[in-house]
Amino acid sequence: MSKYVVGVDVGGTTVKLGMFTVDGEVISKWEIPTRTEDDGSHILPDIADSIKREIVAHNFNAEDFAGVGIGVPGPVDDKGVVHKAVNLGWQNEFSIVETMKKLLPGMTVRGGNDANVAALGEMWKGGGQGCENLVAVTLGTGVGGGIIVGGRLLNGSTGAGGEIGHIHIEDNETEACGCGNYGCLEEYASATGIVRLARRELEASSDPSSLRDGEVSAKTVFDAVKAGDTLAIRVAEAFGEYLGKGLAIIAGVVNPEVFVIGGGVSKAGEILFDYIRPAFERTVFHGSRDTRFALATLGNDAGIYGAAKLILGNAD
Amino acid sequence: MSKYVVGVDVGGTTVKLGMFTVDGEVISKWEIPTRTEDDGSHILPDIADSIKREIVAHNFNAEDFAGVGIGVPGPVDDKGVVHKAVNLGWQNEFSIVETMKKLLPGMTVRGGNDANVAALGEMWKGGGQGCENLVAVTLGTGVGGGIIVGGRLLNGSTGAGGEIGHIHIEDNETEACGCGNYGCLEEYASATGIVRLARRELEASSDPSSLRDGEVSAKTVFDAVKAGDTLAIRVAEAFGEYLGKGLAIIAGVVNPEVFVIGGGVSKAGEILFDYIRPAFERTVFHGSRDTRFALATLGNDAGIYGAAKLILGNAD
Repeated sequence: MSKYVVGVDVGGTTVKLGMFTVDGEVISKWEIPTRTEDDGSHILPDIADSIKREIVAHNFNAEDFAGVGIGVPGPVDDKGVVHKAVNLGWQNEFSIVETMKKLLPGMTVRGGNDANVAALGEMWKGGGQGCENLVAVTLGTGVGGGIIVGGRLLNGSTGAGGEIGHIHIEDNETEACGCGNYGCLEEYASATGIVRLARRELEASSDPSSLRDGEVSAKTVFDAVKAGDTLAIRVAEAFGEYLGKGLAIIAGVVNPEVFVIGGGVSKAGEILFDYIRPAFERTVFHGSRDTRFALATLGNDAGIYGAAKLILGNAD
Repeated sequence: MSKYVVGVDVGGTTVKLGMFTVDGEVISKWEIPTRTEDDGSHILPDIADSIKREIVAHNFNAEDFAGVGIGVPGPVDDKGVVHKAVNLGWQNEFSIVETMKKLLPGMTVRGGNDANVAALGEMWKGGGQGCENLVAVTLGTGVGGGIIVGGRLLNGSTGAGGEIGHIHIEDNETEACGCGNYGCLEEYASATGIVRLARRELEASSDPSSLRDGEVSAKTVFDAVKAGDTLAIRVAEAFGEYLGKGLAIIAGVVNPEVFVIGGGVSKAGEILFDYIRPAFERTVFHGSRDTRFALATLGNDAGIYGAAKLILGNAD
């Protein structure tokens, strides 16, 4: 009977690892550096060695483990094939599952995209507990998404499922998104996007605002909103208009029970929902109107929880 | 060993039924009227009686059947609960699976939304054969959708998954959609939507067009497009701009391998794709740029095929 599971979240500079009981109790959490040199060829061996050492350190046996789940920053399909992960130096398609199995003989291994895996973590132990249909939205430097349907990750045909930051939401945009397109949701709803909206508002208006005095960031914008700054409130309204419309579209497509909102921008708290809801409710299909909004609760640990959950299977 | 399966597609006026081998060979197809009187309470007993008679007529036994799948025009969740089906007179939530099981003792029964079930049919034996990730788009009086992820139907938390006709695609719309919102995809990409776009173009322009002479319908518009009518071509471009953007958004969310386009409008043929692709390629996330377009091939039989496939399980 397997008692433990390991979740691995591979980032561009650090690999986070977590050892859990199959019930999701944390036994240990640790980190190792991500060695991206030599086309990232050291990353998976480093992870395997680190897991083996941790197992020994706890006097556990490999047989006690249900397996190792691993999330990576790039598209991963249902079969565990990584199509590319430029931040890790991985330029070619390969099976992360087969590679890790050779490094950890006898272990079950599963892989997924990091944003999708984080969604699974929030479903298991975070803001979406108890839901089998949810969309996790990460509002950070970019906008990421992870979609869970019937307790299973929606990876898509080439691992690009849940790329909600790049849905087209504005026809009249003159600045390109990082992806090369124009008018992506990420250009308005990410931390960077909020700064852009604020800069535009500061230029277009001569209204007084605390944002004129210091740093303009997602945090200072929402701090100003909470202090009643009318210019900042207009920025929040523009942000909420775009994000509310975007989430309404996503709700029409996948009909989730809840949107779990995480990432740096979500530190502003539930006030975000006050700005998202008007456009959401105005444009959403009535069958999805009751979709809830919740804050993510696992923070940076969502990835290791979700990676562990990859091994444990569907919602239960 | 089960040899046969029955697929049922319940429409507002007619119930279509099909008896298939488990490999999808048609044994018989037939129809019965949909009796919507008395809150639609006769519909399921009528279907059960008709299936029993067909089994007897073929000298089959109930034990030869893997089960009965049934698609209905309303939201159906993963557990087979119909939330409402106004066209059938069903006002209250009930389990179509439990009800049908009582009417067909010993039979396995599964239920789904008709548009979703039709998508499963196109995956099994139609335009999406061999694909485990596809979106079926029905361009008829309205715009319907059915999404298959990893070989499984995406029903959503309340059975409203795949309601792609009602994603918000235009901010500047003054006419309400049938759903009550403004600017839904259905207002531009359905047969009715194409007629609206044509009427607007005919009013706004004084260009000569064959559309000025007779009936304006999706068919006459695309017939005129094929004859080189420049006004009709502008209508097709407007249609393609909306639908291309809409499908690009959907591709960004679910990353299908193929869009299978059906419904009356699809009778225009592959020329539709020429008008959809420019906006699709301009706005889609690069990870989903290779999504293919295909025509649905099962026509009105998609529902009975898909309902039968509900019983046979996932993509195989």
